Amino acid sequence: MSDGPTITTIAQRAGVSIASVSRVLNGLPTKADTERRVMSAARELGYVPNSAARSLKSRRSNQLGFAMADIGNPVYLAMIREIQPLFKAAGYRLVLHSTNVDEADEIDVLRGLGERYIDGLIMVPLRVTAEHLNMFAAARAPIVIIGSVPEGTPVDNVRTDSRKGVRLAVGHLHALGRRRIGFVNGPVDTVPGAARSAAYAEALPALGLPYDPSLVEVGDFYRTDGARAVARLLEREPDLDALLCANDLIALGALDVLRRAGRRVPQDVAVAGMDDTDLATIAWPALTSVSMGSAERGRAAAELLLDRLDNGRRAPRVVTVEPRLVVRASTTGEETP
Amino acid sequence: MSDGPTITTIAQRAGVSIASVSRVLNGLPTKADTERRVMSAARELGYVPNSAARSLKSRRSNQLGFAMADIGNPVYLAMIREIQPLFKAAGYRLVLHSTNVDEADEIDVLRGLGERYIDGLIMVPLRVTAEHLNMFAAARAPIVIIGSVPEGTPVDNVRTDSRKGVRLAVGHLHALGRRRIGFVNGPVDTVPGAARSAAYAEALPALGLPYDPSLVEVGDFYRTDGARAVARLLEREPDLDALLCANDLIALGALDVLRRAGRRVPQDVAVAGMDDTDLATIAWPALTSVSMGSAERGRAAAELLLDRLDNGRRAPRVVTVEPRLVVRASTTGEETP
Repeated sequence: MSDGPTITTIAQRAGVSIASVSRVLNGLPTKADTERRVMSAARELGYVPNSAARSLKSRRSNQLGFAMADIGNPVYLAMIREIQPLFKAAGYRLVLHSTNVDEADEIDVLRGLGERYIDGLIMVPLRVTAEHLNMFAAARAPIVIIGSVPEGTPVDNVRTDSRKGVRLAVGHLHALGRRRIGFVNGPVDTVPGAARSAAYAEALPALGLPYDPSLVEVGDFYRTDGARAVARLLEREPDLDALLCANDLIALGALDVLRRAGRRVPQDVAVAGMDDTDLATIAWPALTSVSMGSAERGRAAAELLLDRLDNGRRAPRVVTVEPRLVVRASTTGEETP
Repeated sequence: MSDGPTITTIAQRAGVSIASVSRVLNGLPTKADTERRVMSAARELGYVPNSAARSLKSRRSNQLGFAMADIGNPVYLAMIREIQPLFKAAGYRLVLHSTNVDEADEIDVLRGLGERYIDGLIMVPLRVTAEHLNMFAAARAPIVIIGSVPEGTPVDNVRTDSRKGVRLAVGHLHALGRRRIGFVNGPVDTVPGAARSAAYAEALPALGLPYDPSLVEVGDFYRTDGARAVARLLEREPDLDALLCANDLIALGALDVLRRAGRRVPQDVAVAGMDDTDLATIAWPALTSVSMGSAERGRAAAELLLDRLDNGRRAPRVVTVEPRLVVRASTTGEETP
């Protein structure tokens, strides 16, 4: 196990007894001078309180983490519904973090791995920065990343094929006779935003349609931003006859705006979302949406993490989940039961 | 601080040196016999690894918890949106637990407070059992409960007035001329289920309508259970002209079933939900719903917990949030912008 500082090495450094270190670490009354020396020695030695070592029975915290970008997006709910029972069956309690797409929050959660309140982590970062990669490499507990990471990143990884997903949706709208297919994306500096942007630009020429940048609008991955982006797009391109939205929340925003504008869905404008969340069947008309295999991705990530906890030394694995199109009334006008 | 067992008392009990206990607790190689004696002594003494004491700099984990019954119900999302920024501003990371209305899971989270990976907890238990009350009383970190608890329970408490909420909705449906007002509840052995059941039974006679148990159906607080309960109710009482649903998820299930049955909402059956979640404006027609002040409850709970962390000895407080009715198309037929 760890070769890091222990209370023995802290005692040596501080020049006090092991019992004194123990008293300080356990928060018991100690002479101020002793406490100061112990804390200073501990800091110098880079002592990280190790809850894994402190759990006497199992030497672990019995908790595993899942860090998502936005707890308001039910795509993560679909993952959690698969992850939680698998963790529970393996004796782990699930701890959730919602980072609100805040990079500093994500880094903070990764740093928290050093405190060992969880024994491992599944993370869905929307951006993977150099600092993320440093934290992955230095992590003191196993990490599984859902989403694309650079080749050779030393973590288990679950990904999906966004390009194929976009291709499926654009192909479906084209097959329905739509030719002015608008695209409403989230920020293109995010992993999903970049992949979807590139995929849309490729998909149209493959069907013999020109790529028209005027049909593309970028907002954020939320309903209100989606609505605003769709409003801008409709004003600029009033003749569009279909909308592909980069997630279901954006698509809900599109339905709001089209309804207010008196455009019928799908007769005037067919609308497709992505992620195939619970929202797709709550919306009216029900949303055609590209399933990016959220449940499968959650399950695969949980299995990779549990396997890694049993087998810390195996090589990192990549699991890829295939997208599929789920057709509903927002493109075909036919009610689904 | 704690008077509980320390490595000194464990060493005495086990008849080994403090250094040996330290080695075992830090997970370093130790003779099997020594390890066994230390672990056995630790267990007998009820030793709980104390991460607060181990966080040398601050003596705290810098994390606070929020435990909810069902992460799939956006009523909790509304609370989290208020809680997280307040915690963040105070320097705390938010840790989420979803207990799936599993009592054992809730108790496990409460027990986890002893491990000090969080410095305090906001919990929304659906049932408050004797074991919950024991855990509240014995908790080693502050707890705030959202929902009703028995008088005198030694925790800070945020509640709402379910009876008034039900009265507002039933009064609204009655004012619209509806006289066969069905009620679809969740389990009546839960805190909200019991309160709503009693409130519905009271509200009708107050309006001069008879209480007819045949108009009441009980399922669970989920969309699919709601749909099944509404289907049973419609079969038994085909002439009902309004439905009050105990939460928005049940109301979504009601909309599904009414649509399939060819009943127009609200012309044939007016539908009202409770909690006024994001789902209310995603549904079509948009749902009239009783806001139980989720955002306000979340904010009040976070403020109580942060205040308690500064002021551990003050008397427990109760904050009550008033419900209000939010009228939308599912009862009035008028579109809301």
